[in-house]
Order: sequence, then structure tokens, then C-alpha cells
Amino acid sequence: MEQAAKNIEVNNVVNGVDVDELFGTINAIKKAPVIATFKFKADNQWMGGGHNRTTIKNFYGTQQDHKHQEPFVLDADEPPLLLGRDLGPNPVEYALTALAACVTTSIVYHAAAKGVAIRSMESRLEGDIDLQGFLGMRDDVPRGYKEIRMSVKIDADAPPEKLEEIVQLGPTYSPVFDTITRAVPVKVQMER
Amino acid sequence: MEQAAKNIEVNNVVNGVDVDELFGTINAIKKAPVIATFKFKADNQWMGGGHNRTTIKNFYGTQQDHKHQEPFVLDADEPPLLLGRDLGPNPVEYALTALAACVTTSIVYHAAAKGVAIRSMESRLEGDIDLQGFLGMRDDVPRGYKEIRMSVKIDADAPPEKLEEIVQLGPTYSPVFDTITRAVPVKVQMER
Repeated sequence: MEQAAKNIEVNNVVNGVDVDELFGTINAIKKAPVIATFKFKADNQWMGGGHNRTTIKNFYGTQQDHKHQEPFVLDADEPPLLLGRDLGPNPVEYALTALAACVTTSIVYHAAAKGVAIRSMESRLEGDIDLQGFLGMRDDVPRGYKEIRMSVKIDADAPPEKLEEIVQLGPTYSPVFDTITRAVPVKVQMER
Repeated sequence: MEQAAKNIEVNNVVNGVDVDELFGTINAIKKAPVIATFKFKADNQWMGGGHNRTTIKNFYGTQQDHKHQEPFVLDADEPPLLLGRDLGPNPVEYALTALAACVTTSIVYHAAAKGVAIRSMESRLEGDIDLQGFLGMRDDVPRGYKEIRMSVKIDADAPPEKLEEIVQLGPTYSPVFDTITRAVPVKVQMER
């Protein structure tokens, strides 16, 4: 009896995502949209040459500040070919990491909301950069990625013809996909 | 005598960047622009829920494949508030990391090329996201960042009125700044 009662209270978890909590969040935002306003933050410290360190400590959301359980420390550097010491991924590799992680999570969360169980998923990303842009050698060459391609291998509890639809939940909802493909304003200013 | 000869051979290093090598690279690219074509790569594996792992192993440039000295492994997750277990920065925090690292390195390399020594540099970044976009609750709310702000504190061997110019080398040349602000095409497809 007690066992049965406990079972009834167990939340509906799909793909490791608590779907009851997800819909609870959506309902709470419907009542008070202001809680959906988030600010994400990062601090960076130059370490010398191509080496610098980003620390992620806290963010703002649901009208209050939140701390990560522990700060995340991420070193970036350039490989020797690009005059660094290879002490971390380089900045454009971090950009691919952000995109890979975000498209993946967007697929997982939105598939969970639809009740589609994913058994496994992996992806490979590749992006083209012509260094003449960064070096300021040619103004008609973009400094950043010309194009990025992401290939997703997925095994999910869905008919084969539905799999492509599940994969496309990623680019449809991913904040980083949107940030890269939409042209987001970035203001860089000197602190006086 | 031998000592003097050695000293003459020492390269011109500014901000930890070998400027002779930097101009050597530029000259080599002028002769053979094809060596400036780079491909950066990342592999991602879903670990469950909001947790996934990106591995950065190799890249292509100067017409050949290059391996990092060791693969870089980067875990992403969501904080409990966003239904994860906080096992890593979340994807949009990785995007800020990419931007912070790239603008910083762009300032450092281009200041070095101009012979401007930087004594120290740090920055703080903040970006606004309305979760209603990711959740698909409102189509008029972008999924990604609405705006990102980066504030740079710099101490460099330059007159105060030149410092702002040095900081602006970042957004002028940074590949990730360009990738975020320009609208880069991203193709996501299912691997069959």
C-alpha cells in the first residue's frame, strides 16, 4: 500500500528529464513570464599569449541570483601552429562545443516533452574558417565560421521516418544554434 | 661572441606571442592562401538528461590534419533549476566562454602585431535569454541571446586615449565575435 502510494508520486522522467517538472516550469512561466528572464555570466582572465581562463560561477533567473554548485574553470589556448601552447581548446573550438551541447540538449528536452525516449545520441561537428579573416589580410573574408555542419546519429524509440523530425527539434529550439545563425548584437566596451 | 649570436637569433615576443612567427605566417599565407583554410572539429556524446560530453581532438589547416597534444574533454549540463545535475557549464555559458576567449586572444595577438605590450587584461560578460523562446512558448521571443555585453579591463603600455582602440581590436578581428554577430549558416542533419 505504502509502496503503491510512493509509486504514484514518482515523476514522469524521459531521457533523464523530469517531464512533470518541465511542464510545471512552463505553467509557472505562463502565470509569471518575468521568471523566464535569464542572465548568463562569465569572467575571463588573460594568462599570457593565447592562454586565457574563463570562470562560470553564477547566473540570474526566476528573479534571483543562482550559484553553480562549484565554479567551472575553462582554459582556452591556441595550438602551436597558431602560436599558442595548446593548454586548452581554442575559442572557435569552444564555439563548436557550445553548439554541440545545445543542439543535443534541445533534442533531448523537446523529445522528452513529446514522450519520445532516446536510447543514444552522438554527433560530429565541423566548421570552416579562413585565417585570412582573423589576420586582417582580406576584408572580403569573414573572420569567423563560413559554415558549420553537424551530423547527428540517434537511436530513439520512434519509427525511422520520425527520427529526422526529432533531430530537427535541435536547430528549431536550440539557443546557441539561434545565437550563431541569427546575428546577435554583442557590445564590447572598455571598463574605465 | 656565441652568446651575442644567440641573442640576435631570439625572436620578437610581445604579450607571449612570437611576432616574428606571426608575420612569418602572414607572409607564408600571402604566397599560398590555401594554407589559411582551416576546419575545426568537435565530437559530442549524450550522457543522459542535460549532460553531454564534447571531445576536441584534431583540426585541419596548412593542408594537413593536426592533433592536439591531448584530446580536450568538455562536459556540459544544466543546473538543477533547468532540470540538470550541474555537472558542467551549460551550452549558453560555453558560448560566452568562446566569445570571452576569442575577443581576448584577438586583442592580444593584434596588439602584439602593433608592438603594444599588455600588462594585464580581464573581462566580464553577461547575456540575456528569455526562456520562453527555448520552451517554444512564444515565437516572437528569440531562442538564443537577445544581447551580449562584454566589459574589458586592460592595463597596457599605451596612452589612455589609445586603450579603447586596443580593446576594439577584439570585436574587429575575433572569429567568435563575428560568428555570433553575423548570422552563420549551420546545417544540422541526421546521420543515416
